[in-house]
Amino acid sequence: MLSDIVLLGLATLLSVLEQAYFVSKVYQARRKYKVSPPAMNGPPEFDRISRAQINSFEYYPMFLTIMWTAGVFQHQVPAFVIGLGYLAARFKYFHGYAEAAELRVVPLRVAALMLWILVGLAAIGIGKVIVYKYAYKDILRVSRYFMGN
Amino acid sequence: MLSDIVLLGLATLLSVLEQAYFVSKVYQARRKYKVSPPAMNGPPEFDRISRAQINSFEYYPMFLTIMWTAGVFQHQVPAFVIGLGYLAARFKYFHGYAEAAELRVVPLRVAALMLWILVGLAAIGIGKVIVYKYAYKDILRVSRYFMGN
Amino acid sequence: MLSDIVLLGLATLLSVLEQAYFVSKVYQARRKYKVSPPAMNGPPEFDRISRAQINSFEYYPMFLTIMWTAGVFQHQVPAFVIGLGYLAARFKYFHGYAEAAELRVVPLRVAALMLWILVGLAAIGIGKVIVYKYAYKDILRVSRYFMGN
Repeated sequence: MLSDIVLLGLATLLSVLEQAYFVSKVYQARRKYKVSPPAMNGPPEFDRISRAQINSFEYYPMFLTIMWTAGVFQHQVPAFVIGLGYLAARFKYFHGYAEAAELRVVPLRVAALMLWILVGLAAIGIGKVIVYKYAYKDILRVSRYFMGN
Repeated sequence: MLSDIVLLGLATLLSVLEQAYFVSKVYQARRKYKVSPPAMNGPPEFDRISRAQINSFEYYPMFLTIMWTAGVFQHQVPAFVIGLGYLAARFKYFHGYAEAAELRVVPLRVAALMLWILVGLAAIGIGKVIVYKYAYKDILRVSRYFMGN
Repeated sequence: MLSDIVLLGLATLLSVLEQAYFVSKVYQARRKYKVSPPAMNGPPEFDRISRAQINSFEYYPMFLTIMWTAGVFQHQVPAFVIGLGYLAARFKYFHGYAEAAELRVVPLRVAALMLWILVGLAAIGIGKVIVYKYAYKDILRVSRYFMGN
């Protein structure tokens, strides 16, 4: 059912808008610091903004993947909430890094924590489906044995 | 039903082949301009080809995500058509950029436009499902009120 | 049914853990060779590790996409097995590249081979669904014609 994954779709949509926002910031910085493609480096102010965007893009597939895996195999609501937390941490990370390299550290840790929570949710969800698929009869047999029937 | 997403699968397959094609072009350029890994920079001709590939790869997760989101929550046919438009624009972008930095601009804008259309389609599709899921009863009540029964 | 895609979910989970492992190696190398963000370059030892991680991240969306496409449109078991082969090849690639640039070549070719097998699986699966969706009646008519009824 589409309604079982619609919040994942919504978080995905918001994440695309956030990525587009980061890109627009790099475009602005390219103009401000006069760094024309294909050049990738400029003054440290430009480099920090550019690195913040690249880092966010690098982690983007992992984020999307693990949010969807957690949401599909476990439940969309916690995956959606943690996903929003990740997007918020990335937003703080981007603006922190643009200001000073040290300010990227804390929000990056929060973002990593969100990813690990999603990994945990996904692992639980997948574990349940695997147990159900491959060990259902064994579980039934064992529980019957202990229940005495 | 698989047949409801098969065109999205087809566009995905074509997109993977396009990415592989870009990579093969960078390999050729590495040999031609004698830029051995881990070096990433060489003469401007090499840098433009390398940047074109990197940029296409950077946007790839966003493209796939938003095409699938639009196709699943709205309908696969428009998402497929716009998706093909995006892949064609990326092809022109790659070959334009390889020739001269200015020639990357127009196809990149076309590619961005395709992404925005997909974002719009996805937003409409998700909006419909959310309204249906969370406000269906309210809509019924309101319409009953105005219909007088 | 979730049980029809659970192995894809499992391979996805493992792939996220592998990516996290590569990132942790780059962090270690940043500390060891004293390369602080936003700097991206250092001694060749650092550059190789950094390039190995970046290359793995670049191909990650393509890998995930094509594994899921193959697994959904064809069958999850072959996609899962080939997917594990890809992850193993990436592991060897990463550690080979960290040691010497030449040692990256063979595992990278194995990883590419795995991707091409997944592309083939996906193409077969999508082809079957498209034929079934768009040409089912024609096939029936032709076979009836030859069967003589």
